[in-house]
Formats: sequence, C-alpha cells, structure tokens
Amino acid sequence: MAFLEFTRLDERSVIEYVKSVAALSSLLKLDDEGDAAEKLTVKEIGDGNLNFVFLVSNSAHSVIMKQSLPYIRCIGESWPLTKDRAYFEAMALEEQGRITPHHVPQLYHFDPTMSLIAMRYLPPPHIILRKGLIAGIQYPLLARHIAHFMANTLFFTSLLFHSTLDHKRQVAKFCGNSALCKHTEQVVFSDPYQISQYNHWTSPYLDPDAEALRHDNLLKLEIAILKSKYMPFPHSTLLCSVLLTHINFLIVFCSSRFSEQAQALIHGDLHTSSVMVTPESTQVIDPEFAFYGPMGYDIGAFLGNLMLAFFAQDGLVDQPDHRKAYKEWILETVEDTWNLFYKNFVALWDEHRNGAGEAYLPAVYNNPEVQLLAQKRYMTELFHDSLGFGAAKMIRRIVGVAHVEDFESITDAAKRASCERKALNLAKMLLKDRTKFEGIAQIVSAIRQF
Amino acid sequence: MAFLEFTRLDERSVIEYVKSVAALSSLLKLDDEGDAAEKLTVKEIGDGNLNFVFLVSNSAHSVIMKQSLPYIRCIGESWPLTKDRAYFEAMALEEQGRITPHHVPQLYHFDPTMSLIAMRYLPPPHIILRKGLIAGIQYPLLARHIAHFMANTLFFTSLLFHSTLDHKRQVAKFCGNSALCKHTEQVVFSDPYQISQYNHWTSPYLDPDAEALRHDNLLKLEIAILKSKYMPFPHSTLLCSVLLTHINFLIVFCSSRFSEQAQALIHGDLHTSSVMVTPESTQVIDPEFAFYGPMGYDIGAFLGNLMLAFFAQDGLVDQPDHRKAYKEWILETVEDTWNLFYKNFVALWDEHRNGAGEAYLPAVYNNPEVQLLAQKRYMTELFHDSLGFGAAKMIRRIVGVAHVEDFESITDAAKRASCERKALNLAKMLLKDRTKFEGIAQIVSAIRQF
Repeated sequence: MAFLEFTRLDERSVIEYVKSVAALSSLLKLDDEGDAAEKLTVKEIGDGNLNFVFLVSNSAHSVIMKQSLPYIRCIGESWPLTKDRAYFEAMALEEQGRITPHHVPQLYHFDPTMSLIAMRYLPPPHIILRKGLIAGIQYPLLARHIAHFMANTLFFTSLLFHSTLDHKRQVAKFCGNSALCKHTEQVVFSDPYQISQYNHWTSPYLDPDAEALRHDNLLKLEIAILKSKYMPFPHSTLLCSVLLTHINFLIVFCSSRFSEQAQALIHGDLHTSSVMVTPESTQVIDPEFAFYGPMGYDIGAFLGNLMLAFFAQDGLVDQPDHRKAYKEWILETVEDTWNLFYKNFVALWDEHRNGAGEAYLPAVYNNPEVQLLAQKRYMTELFHDSLGFGAAKMIRRIVGVAHVEDFESITDAAKRASCERKALNLAKMLLKDRTKFEGIAQIVSAIRQF
Repeated sequence: MAFLEFTRLDERSVIEYVKSVAALSSLLKLDDEGDAAEKLTVKEIGDGNLNFVFLVSNSAHSVIMKQSLPYIRCIGESWPLTKDRAYFEAMALEEQGRITPHHVPQLYHFDPTMSLIAMRYLPPPHIILRKGLIAGIQYPLLARHIAHFMANTLFFTSLLFHSTLDHKRQVAKFCGNSALCKHTEQVVFSDPYQISQYNHWTSPYLDPDAEALRHDNLLKLEIAILKSKYMPFPHSTLLCSVLLTHINFLIVFCSSRFSEQAQALIHGDLHTSSVMVTPESTQVIDPEFAFYGPMGYDIGAFLGNLMLAFFAQDGLVDQPDHRKAYKEWILETVEDTWNLFYKNFVALWDEHRNGAGEAYLPAVYNNPEVQLLAQKRYMTELFHDSLGFGAAKMIRRIVGVAHVEDFESITDAAKRASCERKALNLAKMLLKDRTKFEGIAQIVSAIRQF
C-alpha cells in the first residue's frame, strides 16, 4: 500500500505505513525471518493537543510515529491548524539533535505528505517530566541537562555564532507556520487579557482574578512588549503565497512564521510536558513550534512551568508539609537551571568570540572589558525576557484555553483555585516588575514569599 | 530607439529615452506642434553619491530623470551597489506621496530595466535644505511640514494602523535591498568604531577623537543595540535566491532587506539633503533606502542633521555672533519638529484606535488610562530610539566615509575640527545617555551647553 496523499493513520494503517517505508522496515527487521516481522504491536499513546502518536514495536525495536492533524485535537475541527508543522518539528529535531544528541530523540524518518515523523522511542522508565513533578519525583540532573540543552541549542543558532549569511540560511529553513504563530499570539498574548470564548478558569473561585486581569493596565503594557518581541515577522505570507502559485515544492519555505526578534532557533513550546525524564536521562521532544524567535521564550517556558509545578504541590497532597522538601527541590532546580544556563552560554560565547558570529564583531568588541559589559547586558536582557515570557505562560495556563495537569489533577476546586491564585499573583508580579530583578536568587526568594 | 536593457544614460540618450516613453512625451508635449517638441534642454544636476540626475525641460514642462547606477558614484566602481534600489525609491515615492501629497514630488514614470525614475521637478526657489542651512536661511514652516510628513508616513504604515495582513503585504512590497542595508550596517553601525579603509576625518586635529571612538566601550554597547534594531531581518536573501532561479519577474521581491524591527515604512535616509525647501514648501525626496524599519531611524536622521548644521554655524562665518539668532532658530526647529511629530502621531493614533491596527487590540487596550500609558511608553521608546539613531548618524558623518557639506565647506581645518568635535561629543553623550532624557527641551538645553 502506498501513501501518496495525506491519510489520517489509525492503529491498523500505521502498520501498513511502516511496512511501506524501507528505513522503518529495516529498523524493525520486518524483512528478516523470524518473530520480529510477525509480532508488530501498535498503541496510540498521544496525550497532547495537536497530534496522534503511535508506538509501533516488536522484539527488534520500538518506533514512535507522530502524525500532525489539520486541527487542534482537543478542540476538534473547529480550530483548524496547518499540518505543515510536522516539517518544522522534523527540522528542529534534526538540528537540535545535531547540537545536543544526548538530549533529543533520534529522527528516523519524515514524510511531509503524511505530516508524519518517525523517531526513537524513549523507553520506561522515561516519563513526561510534568507527571514526574506531580508525583513528587526528584531529578537531580534535570537542571544541568536542560541548561546544557538550552545553552547549546540557543547559542549555536544565534548571531553570536552564525555569520549573517549562515543565520539567513538557517532562518529560511525554519520559516514557520503562520497559523501556529497566530495561535500562540492569541492564546498566550491576547486572550487572557480580553473576553474570549476559549478562556476558562476554576470558576467561581477565580472569577474576580480573571476579571482583574482584563482590567490590569500595567500588565497589558508589559504583555504588549513581549508580544511584539514574539510576533511574526510580518511579510512572509504574502511573499510565499505569490510563490505558491508558482512553485509547489517550495511549500516548506512558505506561510512563514517569523518573530520580530529572530534571535535563535527556539523550541517554541518548552514546558514540562515537552521533556521526558528518568533520573539519568533528560530528553526534549515535540519541537513543532520551533522557529527563529526570542531565546527567552524557551527559558521562560521551562522556568514558568517549574513554578506552576511548585504552586500545585500544596494541592496535590493532603498535608502541605508532605511536599516541603520537594518544593525546595523545585526551587533549587529553577535556580540551578538559570545559573547553569548562564554559565554554559557565556562559556560558549567566550570560546567562539573570534569566530564567524556577526552580532559583536571582534574588531569592535576588542577588549575584555567591553566583552564583559556586552555579555552582562545581553544576559540581563535575556533574564528579563525569560521572566516575562515565563510569567505570560503561567497566566495563560490558569485563565486561558489550555490548562496544565499540575493544577487540573487537584480535584477539590477550592483548593485548586487557591494554588492557582498564588501562581497567578506571582506571575503578574513577575510580568510587571521583571526588570527590577537582578538574579534568579531574588526570584526564588519572591516565590517563597507567596 | 528602444531601451530593452540597462544602459547608462547621458545628456544625449536621456532625450531619446524621454521620446520613447509616452507618459513623458505627453507631459513635455513632444507630439504637439510648436516650440515644445524642439527645444528640449538637458542638464545633469545630481550631487548625491549614488545616482545620476537629469533635468529635462522645455517650455511645456520640466521633468527629473533619476538613474541608479550599479556602484556608489562618489567612490566609483570599487564599491558596487545594486541598482534595484530605484524600484524601492519609486515604490516609496508612490506610497509616501499617497499619504502626504503636499510633501513628496509626484512620480511620473518608473522603468525597472533602466533603474530609472521620472518625477516632478521642484523649481526654484526650491533648494536642498542643507544648502539653505549653510546659507543661514530660516524656514518657518519646516518643523511643521516635516513633523506632518513623518507622523503621517510612519503612522499609516505601522501596525498601529495596519492589520497584520495589510502590514505583511506592504512589507513584502518593500522588502529591500540587502546590499544597501549591508552598506548602512557597515558605514553607520560598524566602521566608525573600528579601523576601516573608508574612514576619514579632519586630520590631524581629530586623530585622538577618532581613536577614542574605537576605545569607548560604553558607546560600543549602545551602538550594538541600535544595530540590532536596524539590522536586516535575516532570511530573505536565501529565500529569494531560491526564487530567483525560478521566477525572474519576482526579482523586485528579492534580495530582501528587512529590519529586525519592521515598525513602519521609513524613508531610510532622511537627512537635510533629502529635503528640498522654500519658505512655503517642504518636499521630501530620494527615498531609495526606504524599507520597513525602525521609525526612530528617520526622526533621528532629521534631528541629527539639524544638530550637525547647528554645530557647523560657528565655522561658517567670521564672527560666531553673526549666526546667533540663526542657531537659536535651528534649536527651535529641533524642538518643534519632535513636539509637533509627537502631537500629530498621537492624534492619528487616537483617531484610529478602533480601526484595523493590531498592535494594541481595542478589546485589550480598552480604557483611556491604559491607552494613555501605552502611548506614553511607545512614544518614550521612540524618542530614545530617535536620539540614538540621530547620534549614530552624526558620528558617522564626522569620522566615517561620507561627510556633510555643513562641515566640509568650512575651509579652515582647525576651525572645522573644533566644530566637528563639539558635534561629536554631543553625539557620544546622546548615544550613551539617551534614555535619561525625558523630552526634547532637555536635549536643546544640552546642546546649548556645548
């Protein structure tokens, strides 16, 4: 059976598909004699909002098959979404995997027609980090691994490392999906601050809180700044629609999604459900929102979701004290993640400062003092960006369309609302006052006070 | 005679060309009987660095014919420059003329093959503003006119007025010329701060000043920020080169030049030689550097060049006192230009705040207070951007490749250097401390202290 046009796969047809692709047949040893060829099992294991995910395995191997659908799975066909996003996910897996192979699952196969990615299965005990955080499991290497992932993927895709020409080439490859971008613009930067049919919250407890967001002028000012940093670079769609009428194969370059700040290749959705963990392993998955955007969007997503996990803890157990040590571990992880990121990133910058990067020409930034000043300023702005984006992402998870399991699994609504309110208030403060903070230790102190 | 491929026009062939184009023949009444057809005169009147400009006239009419050459005229063929810039100039003349018809000469004809623009001749007593400033002529309407031009062209091409889709369409039309952009990046944002074969200054007087620029760490930090606001959006060239191999007619969309901050359609070179004036009329010409970039780049160019004119005055006359009143008029013009710009721009914003503009959605920015706060913040950032870009442009005119006639016409080198040094020191201070200034009156006070 050949798959020459987009077909939504099910547990049956995915087997047909695997058999039709040589790379996958070979991994699963389907052409060999013996048991492997016979005993293929398929399980749909997707729990995300946007895709179907199948685990196809036999005694020889296990493969993840992820298919993007042309709408948001949890909302249904009423919210269409381009399935071209699989292309960007595949490209990002490849690029981030090249840069940090220990923290990204291997890409086996990509089929643009089917919007289908085949990649390495991360076997148990790998679980989604968010589930680990809900269960109260400590991951002693998490901060180090994520800091490594972020510092390397962000540095090596920025103009600190790239020449302008290389940067252009890379950005072109990742010119993204305007539908996905428009989606983020709406759900992260607009809806929480206006009346929207998609918004919901723990009602009636948080009714006044949600109302207050829509009347908080200072917050609206800050979100405007972040939105403009994230917003798609406004030209590519037309250029590409002109194109499309002429060259079909260029479709991957089209309906582009650029940030006003094309700082680096960002994962674009680096929350705690995009990370799979064991105590020894940290794997970053699902980069379908990847594009050249502001670095702080990734760092903020990760730190903001750790903070959500922190505030959920008291609702997850009967006695708040039961998770006291665990809450401390989360705060340490917040602090270590930023500090290790900072250290790694600046070390990479120092190492490559006489390289091809064109942001700070060595002939101009030609002494250790100016280098240090430039780095400090750069990192301070990145820190403030990260706090702002992190806060924006916390807010939208409490009053916007898509919530997080950390809070959703607290069944007592009053208790849940109380946890959410603390997180919301912290996030509001961070969004408004982020530039007053000089280091992550101050953030951790502020969290402790809530 | 037909002009089917690029031919550099001279005083002879430009007549052949005019005869071959119906729109121009008709304006000049070449097909009518009588004197007009016979007595065409041609004069090369270009004094810019990048083009040849012919005045073609007879008793019926006068037409300006401007041809772009594939190199920088004043440097010669050693510094090649794409002639596609004529396209952007024609598009900008048309767009800015549509928005502010009283301040932009009418476009009659554009020939992409010949890189040729035909436009209305601005007859005497119109002169280049810079020459008027050197001669000490006051233009009482200048501030009002330029403020009107800037407020309207910038507002109506920004996301405050455009929907995202319209903005995309417009930006696509103006995706510019990466060569021109690279040129600006180098001559404005890099060369003055590093050793470059193109730099020159009033030597030996300013040798230590030029040297000091290359060792001023704080200045280098600030210029990095402005450079990143101006820098081309880093993707278009590749996308377009891919394109080019396929669709030749799309050449005008290609080798794009985008700013990281695609805020509005800016003139891109709004110094005092890009403005022609009489006491009653103010006309903005030469928008060949036009692209969607930071608004402050235009405002800064104009204000910065007025400041250069201010500092040149003492060198232009034997007794400094002779130009005392004139210097005061320049300072008033600096102050009025910004203040009237501010007033006009905010009035346009208020008038259109419930329109299609997507930067501040009416449903989010839905009360007068937040509207006022958002405007104040926006205008303050724009003010600081303008000061920074203005300062950068002053510096590059003193130690970079292309100088200004205001200073160049001071024959006594010691005297010239003394004027230049004051301007340079003011510009350095503005570039470093621009965010400390709250209004233009403070800037004028600071200038008086130099």
